[in-house]
Amino acid sequence: MSVDRIDESSRKRRDDHVAVEEPLEIRLDGKSVAVVIRSPGNDEELAAGFLYTEGIIKESHELSTVVLKQDEKNPALANVVEVTTVAGIDLTKRGWQRNFVSASSCGLCGKLTIESVRLHVPSVRDDPLQVSPELIRGLPSKMRSGQAGFDETGGLHAAGLFDRRGELLTLREDIGRHNAVDKVVGAALLSDDVPLRGHVLMVSGRASFEIAQKALMARVPIVAAVSAASSLAVELADSCGMALVGFLRGSSLNVYAGSHRITEKGNSL
Amino acid sequence: MSVDRIDESSRKRRDDHVAVEEPLEIRLDGKSVAVVIRSPGNDEELAAGFLYTEGIIKESHELSTVVLKQDEKNPALANVVEVTTVAGIDLTKRGWQRNFVSASSCGLCGKLTIESVRLHVPSVRDDPLQVSPELIRGLPSKMRSGQAGFDETGGLHAAGLFDRRGELLTLREDIGRHNAVDKVVGAALLSDDVPLRGHVLMVSGRASFEIAQKALMARVPIVAAVSAASSLAVELADSCGMALVGFLRGSSLNVYAGSHRITEKGNSL
Repeated sequence: MSVDRIDESSRKRRDDHVAVEEPLEIRLDGKSVAVVIRSPGNDEELAAGFLYTEGIIKESHELSTVVLKQDEKNPALANVVEVTTVAGIDLTKRGWQRNFVSASSCGLCGKLTIESVRLHVPSVRDDPLQVSPELIRGLPSKMRSGQAGFDETGGLHAAGLFDRRGELLTLREDIGRHNAVDKVVGAALLSDDVPLRGHVLMVSGRASFEIAQKALMARVPIVAAVSAASSLAVELADSCGMALVGFLRGSSLNVYAGSHRITEKGNSL
Repeated sequence: MSVDRIDESSRKRRDDHVAVEEPLEIRLDGKSVAVVIRSPGNDEELAAGFLYTEGIIKESHELSTVVLKQDEKNPALANVVEVTTVAGIDLTKRGWQRNFVSASSCGLCGKLTIESVRLHVPSVRDDPLQVSPELIRGLPSKMRSGQAGFDETGGLHAAGLFDRRGELLTLREDIGRHNAVDKVVGAALLSDDVPLRGHVLMVSGRASFEIAQKALMARVPIVAAVSAASSLAVELADSCGMALVGFLRGSSLNVYAGSHRITEKGNSL
């Protein structure tokens, strides 16, 4: 894409990489479940992760096939991931009731109240994971080194999944932070590695309610964010036994919830 | 809220302000339209702006009443803004068809394809507004000076509406950038100041498709963002005659679309 780059003394037409976003439709057993605007790539993971963090798919073995179908003739139309489940699962009892005709921009469209969300989010209180502040401090540089898309466009969010020793297992990027998380979780789901007990999830930018909720659905006990945490994210983390770290920059960090999990006695690098 | 602040040599319990988010339900003539997660404040503007940028309300005079109702006994439940319209408006013909059972995190839930969105977004090609690069460069500092919430929490997005001389008219903050835009647009709607021909909208962070779409619904001819623009935002701006400026930092800026609007011949400070 070409842009006009204007600075103090010049104006130049030049090529620029912008973060690409396109709609993706997620179908489950032939039925439309959602359209998400995402950065193309790892679409099967995104679809699987979305269905899992939304509580519609409960276990890896419930999935039969996950197939991306693209409309080559008309790329402006939504791409589609068709997901099918194994026989005998009653999906009508899954997920939250969504009873609004329209939707907002927050991933909570149709979820009537925070209370109704909380009822469906599992606790991670029985996960014994504790890590050292040093281990947490080491996460951003590990994640940053894998963010190819960010380097190119400056416009992509990232989510990274780390093991209990602070080793980066999976890194995914997307124009939407929630999509990056769904891709990471979906990759684990497709490898039969969920629930994510004993793992640490890190996200670029802020820790919103939605990120905390998706992490909890995947049973992640520790979430760290580069920027601020929101009040609902803190409340949800606190009520479910998840540690929530924010403003992870340089050697300092804020622990908003579950501070017993971040301790010198915990796992270190 | 109290947090554990950990740095190189110490760990201290201290008070911290986090960005507050709570669900808000928007009802139109008694019917639920959406639940948005937002930072409380200017909720009537948010509801009015949302209905306008979603194409459900077309003109200021269609609104009869806009009233915030809070559940004092149970603040965890969604607050509600009840919007009523004047008699004789057939709302069934308004807005996009939303036909998905679930929803994503992008504000486009249920909008089948980008093409179907484009069909409903007006062109601003006939708006003659042109401004100088200098005027654009002056916007961030004006907006930043009004961002009280960001100063306090570091977690709020902002949207600012400027007139053709670069004077800041309205600034709103929210945990969601799209909500900040809806609040700004809603304030204009409630003051009977829409459409926003001849105005410039600035947003913190990135310019996503959704921000471009909302700005176009309000007929804003120039949108500027602190960070990157996404590919769909650029395409939409380009196809509708809107100027889209990104990476507005210091003296430099990228003009992704509508570059004829950013010219030394245009309005300056």
